[in-house]
Amino acid sequence: MTDEALKTRSVGTDEASDRSAVRKVLEKIKAEGRNALTAPEGKLVCDAYGIRVPREGAARSAADAVKLAEQVGFPVVLKIVSPGILHKTEAGGVLVGLKSREDVSKGYDSILANVKRYKAGAKIEGVQVQQMLTGGQEVIVGAVTDPSFGKLVAFGLGGVLVEVLKDVTFRLAPASKDDALSMLDGIQAAEMLKGVRGGAAVNRDALADIIVRVSRLISDFPEIDEMDLNPVFATDREAIAADVRIVVDFAPRPERYRPSHEDIVAKMNRIMKPDAVAVIGASSEDGKIGNSVMKNLINGGYQGTIYPIHPKADEIMGIEAYKSVKDVPGEIDVAVFAIPAKFVAQALIECGEKKISGAVLIPSGFAETGNLEGQTELQEIGRKYNIRLMGPNIYGFYYTHKNLCATFCTAYDVKGSVALSSQSGGIGMAIIGFSRSAKMGVSAIVGLGNKSDIDEDDLLTFFEQDDNTHVIAQHCEDLKDGRAFAEVAKRVSNKKPVIVLKAGRTSAGARAATSHTGALAGNDKIYEDVFRQSGVIRARSLRDLLDFARGVPILPTPKGENVVIITGAGGSGVLLSDACVENGLKLMAMPDDLDQAFRKFIPPFGAAGNPVDITGGEPPKTYQNTVRLGLEDKRIHSLILGYWHTIITPPMVFARLVVEVKEEMKAKGIEKPIVASLAGDVEVEEASEYLYANGVPAYPYSTEIPVAVLGAKYTWARGAGLL
Amino acid sequence: MTDEALKTRSVGTDEASDRSAVRKVLEKIKAEGRNALTAPEGKLVCDAYGIRVPREGAARSAADAVKLAEQVGFPVVLKIVSPGILHKTEAGGVLVGLKSREDVSKGYDSILANVKRYKAGAKIEGVQVQQMLTGGQEVIVGAVTDPSFGKLVAFGLGGVLVEVLKDVTFRLAPASKDDALSMLDGIQAAEMLKGVRGGAAVNRDALADIIVRVSRLISDFPEIDEMDLNPVFATDREAIAADVRIVVDFAPRPERYRPSHEDIVAKMNRIMKPDAVAVIGASSEDGKIGNSVMKNLINGGYQGTIYPIHPKADEIMGIEAYKSVKDVPGEIDVAVFAIPAKFVAQALIECGEKKISGAVLIPSGFAETGNLEGQTELQEIGRKYNIRLMGPNIYGFYYTHKNLCATFCTAYDVKGSVALSSQSGGIGMAIIGFSRSAKMGVSAIVGLGNKSDIDEDDLLTFFEQDDNTHVIAQHCEDLKDGRAFAEVAKRVSNKKPVIVLKAGRTSAGARAATSHTGALAGNDKIYEDVFRQSGVIRARSLRDLLDFARGVPILPTPKGENVVIITGAGGSGVLLSDACVENGLKLMAMPDDLDQAFRKFIPPFGAAGNPVDITGGEPPKTYQNTVRLGLEDKRIHSLILGYWHTIITPPMVFARLVVEVKEEMKAKGIEKPIVASLAGDVEVEEASEYLYANGVPAYPYSTEIPVAVLGAKYTWARGAGLL
Repeated sequence: MTDEALKTRSVGTDEASDRSAVRKVLEKIKAEGRNALTAPEGKLVCDAYGIRVPREGAARSAADAVKLAEQVGFPVVLKIVSPGILHKTEAGGVLVGLKSREDVSKGYDSILANVKRYKAGAKIEGVQVQQMLTGGQEVIVGAVTDPSFGKLVAFGLGGVLVEVLKDVTFRLAPASKDDALSMLDGIQAAEMLKGVRGGAAVNRDALADIIVRVSRLISDFPEIDEMDLNPVFATDREAIAADVRIVVDFAPRPERYRPSHEDIVAKMNRIMKPDAVAVIGASSEDGKIGNSVMKNLINGGYQGTIYPIHPKADEIMGIEAYKSVKDVPGEIDVAVFAIPAKFVAQALIECGEKKISGAVLIPSGFAETGNLEGQTELQEIGRKYNIRLMGPNIYGFYYTHKNLCATFCTAYDVKGSVALSSQSGGIGMAIIGFSRSAKMGVSAIVGLGNKSDIDEDDLLTFFEQDDNTHVIAQHCEDLKDGRAFAEVAKRVSNKKPVIVLKAGRTSAGARAATSHTGALAGNDKIYEDVFRQSGVIRARSLRDLLDFARGVPILPTPKGENVVIITGAGGSGVLLSDACVENGLKLMAMPDDLDQAFRKFIPPFGAAGNPVDITGGEPPKTYQNTVRLGLEDKRIHSLILGYWHTIITPPMVFARLVVEVKEEMKAKGIEKPIVASLAGDVEVEEASEYLYANGVPAYPYSTEIPVAVLGAKYTWARGAGLL
Repeated sequence: MTDEALKTRSVGTDEASDRSAVRKVLEKIKAEGRNALTAPEGKLVCDAYGIRVPREGAARSAADAVKLAEQVGFPVVLKIVSPGILHKTEAGGVLVGLKSREDVSKGYDSILANVKRYKAGAKIEGVQVQQMLTGGQEVIVGAVTDPSFGKLVAFGLGGVLVEVLKDVTFRLAPASKDDALSMLDGIQAAEMLKGVRGGAAVNRDALADIIVRVSRLISDFPEIDEMDLNPVFATDREAIAADVRIVVDFAPRPERYRPSHEDIVAKMNRIMKPDAVAVIGASSEDGKIGNSVMKNLINGGYQGTIYPIHPKADEIMGIEAYKSVKDVPGEIDVAVFAIPAKFVAQALIECGEKKISGAVLIPSGFAETGNLEGQTELQEIGRKYNIRLMGPNIYGFYYTHKNLCATFCTAYDVKGSVALSSQSGGIGMAIIGFSRSAKMGVSAIVGLGNKSDIDEDDLLTFFEQDDNTHVIAQHCEDLKDGRAFAEVAKRVSNKKPVIVLKAGRTSAGARAATSHTGALAGNDKIYEDVFRQSGVIRARSLRDLLDFARGVPILPTPKGENVVIITGAGGSGVLLSDACVENGLKLMAMPDDLDQAFRKFIPPFGAAGNPVDITGGEPPKTYQNTVRLGLEDKRIHSLILGYWHTIITPPMVFARLVVEVKEEMKAKGIEKPIVASLAGDVEVEEASEYLYANGVPAYPYSTEIPVAVLGAKYTWARGAGLL
């Protein structure tokens, strides 16, 4: 052991990382058939990526150890170096806080004795002598490989309490510096990093830097399966990883096939906006799925060509029928399948031969019933002929702007700008019922079912470039390829809000999801963090998904964070304020001049400030004046209205005046989000509907839902970098 | 300093506490004009109440200190004893981990030097020499005095991270042993007490015991304002308070007047179920409040006597009018005020002279507009004449079983078993609108407004003994007397569910509440914990309050924790499972025989287990068979149904069959809670209404609300000790 064994700590600058050094280490490990790095190997890897570690060296004798200790400086830590021993502490292979030559010498011998007792015959390569770090905040920087999301970097505080509280945050790797900084604020205990009880704040740059470097390392080397820097000592000056654990897995992961972006767009356009649709299994017989599909196509008003396919019939519902898609003279864009599972594969081959772009596989009887082989067969046919598959096990889909109801469910034709999808048929039916009941205009409703091929990110890619769609809302139970979804969602959500209800959030829900679709539900915290990283608005419940889908598209994008509540009912004001906090909305601190301006319009015992409490017995004029002021003043960015039903200002009077003022301002080029909570007798239901129909999301008997809808719009605007 | 100064630690048994010893300490402090106890005084108090503290003694010289250290055993802690120094560490007055005679001797001198530097002239009584505790889990046991709830005992883990996470739990003092044990499970980091990473679990009995003793101490001595045992070392054997801090406040707190239970019941019965009502300010003129009240009384169908009071009129709406209540020949139970604020006091005096039980003070213009004097005047008149005051600043109240609408709002007459109240008029109007819209039967709706007298606990006391009321739901922004509320709620909730929406949960909401009612909103965590301790169901939103009020009364009380989901839509099953976890419901682990029994009724590809997924295309018989089995099997205690709209089993067919099976089972004496989530086209709305009207809380397009309603019922049943 010589002096050159003592590496000086690497400097955390942005120099290019030394990939070849890491490659060399990994090759050695692979050659030796190991799956974990030793501490010195871990140090080499860290050095190569500029991840700072303590001064250290490896000793092969007690004398060596003493010499090294003097070089790195007391106190030191001693750790066994043995490829076979992963849990060094358990093996008695770690000693900390050794302050003298004597301590180090004795310590060396005792570690060797411990390890030999723990695992006779373990190959011992020496003892690492390391600078002992103290002070600062102990944190963990780590990495995991998720089956759906791939490489993720993780961050949390060190210590057992954090483990108990599961206070860890994840980001897709590689993480940007901004991602890394957001992780420091993304744990419950974030305040600990800012310095508490007079302690110094950590150096955020240094800590973010180490996170970025770890994320880059694991992205560059997919064979790194797991990584733990635990603890990292984060002080006001630096962040140094005191212990490095790296586990590798050289088994290649199956690559998931992804068509090119152009191919997805081209195919999805033909599927979603087809000029010609074949119905395989079309039927004249009431009650048959193939009959319902035909009726929906015809009665829905679809203007393209419909080709009924039936082995025997010459015509179905007055339209010429064909025995096979191959007999159809013209081009076909999409084929809707309404035949039993066992006939699907053969018909799909014929679709392939006919060069049809997409197959809408309504039939069930595949993966969801355990028939995995049957589903794999369809996937193989689809790949072979380059047909995209929707389903199987779905209700089909709607694309309203083409008057297209390619489904066996009831028709739906209220055109609008939100596209919805669901993994489950039941949830799809709830979407249709809610849409009809709330008169919610949609551009599309799509069933994804078993997702043998087309999934959420294919839909996002289509809706991204679909001018009829401004907002996308999706229900899912799993993401087959979370990474692809996140990448697409991040891009799309910069332009259009993406709302997701992820079912199976809880372990009980995840178990149910497993039995339902055969999909392994991921760790919910990972979904939570990746959704945020991707700018996705997360709905917490089915009603949230539906309410956000209805409200977000009609709200203009806010130009800033300042929210003001104007309320006739003080009690609503309190509940609306609660809801603002819960939904991350910022109640504007009312400037004095604006406060005075509001006071001019309200009774002397009303409360200005924020909420502006205009009090209950006021005439329409008071609502009018205050709402107008709220819209006119440039410092205010959004309004929340709390209405209280009185004889003096009845519900519809209130609703009409709000819309009038809104339109008056719009004519002057002023557009701000307005939501309303209406407290009153049943007439407030009609008033709420009127407001909603005129661009103001409004709810009777609820203070929390309108604010949640506004909160969803803000979540999106922030994620898209618009605020 | 002699050996007898060395107290042996007291033994934590249940011997009677020595109140006189505490009294003596407190009297000395009062006499000396201090507001905090010294460490030795704290120890005396702890000893008197059997709260274990370390072995220790007070030294007046370095030599004394060394001698004491040898007696308590090394290592020791030294702490300054000085009445003027509260923050000992800051003053350099604490040294820990002294292991030798020499350390102790030097330490004594350095502490004295530090403290003299910190505060020249501070009176130094000596240095405490204390057994140093190590190991185990550091926790905090404390006590605070809340303006509304009075004495509260607090518990949390020690350390700065817990402070950052605000992970502390409270109970009203005195706390029972069960209360104390529930505190150990009431913090987020509860698992830390159970032993993690191989550490031993704390002795729960010992820890609960110290909590109970602290809670008893602060209850016995109201002058103890705050108390901190921080840290308490909790090991697997014992719990010892290493540091004691007690702050006292000898200023007497104003006692809040509370009528006797009998008096409240008698008066409230006369007010809520009156035989004769006077309307002060009755009017024939449309649009006047006194006219609306008259119309509501007459048109609402009130069968008692109505006395219009008006200074000039001889009759109003065909009923003989009087100039004053004093002119009325018969008895009057309650007077409804519909006159301007300035005339209220005089009319109230006349009510007093007439011996009327209650005044319903609709007029505004009192505390809510800053007119505190006016409100105090009314309170004084009320006390003088023993009239109970409802309001002022309210909409009045309804008591449907007497057809009584003593309000200026619209009439409401759907009789039912839930009584609602609101502090705010706006929320009251939302209650009325929702009730009418949802056809929710109510026993009463009451406005409490400024709560100058009658408040939530008076209502609880009335509804407790009111046979027409089975469930009580209240909206409040503050509790003027949280302790009285908690005591009454605890008693009442053992018989009838009590649901509370506490507005002003967040600091923004609390600020709004302050400007609205002049009430100081309390710390929300205290409300949370006290509500739980009192068996109160907490609603998180206005809709929750209304949905719970509607659903909880019609659900039978569950006989156990086993919940089973039966669903036609697998996707709903996943979301329903999520909702179960969120609402603290236990999905029953399905026994093999029961699993087999369910499988007999469902397709082979359906999923048994829990959720029971009967799959989407099933006929009515499948729902029927599985629901019947779910009700018949004694191991299942509650059912959650997930319906999926299909042509084979349309919504109303499903709804009718569920009600049929339910009635069939009821005839056999089987009653279990059933809730339903309906996914489908708009017909599911009618089906949901039918189900609700027949005892099954059911919601279209929502998986979370029906489960939340069931969760509310369970929360109550557990709190009432029925599970």
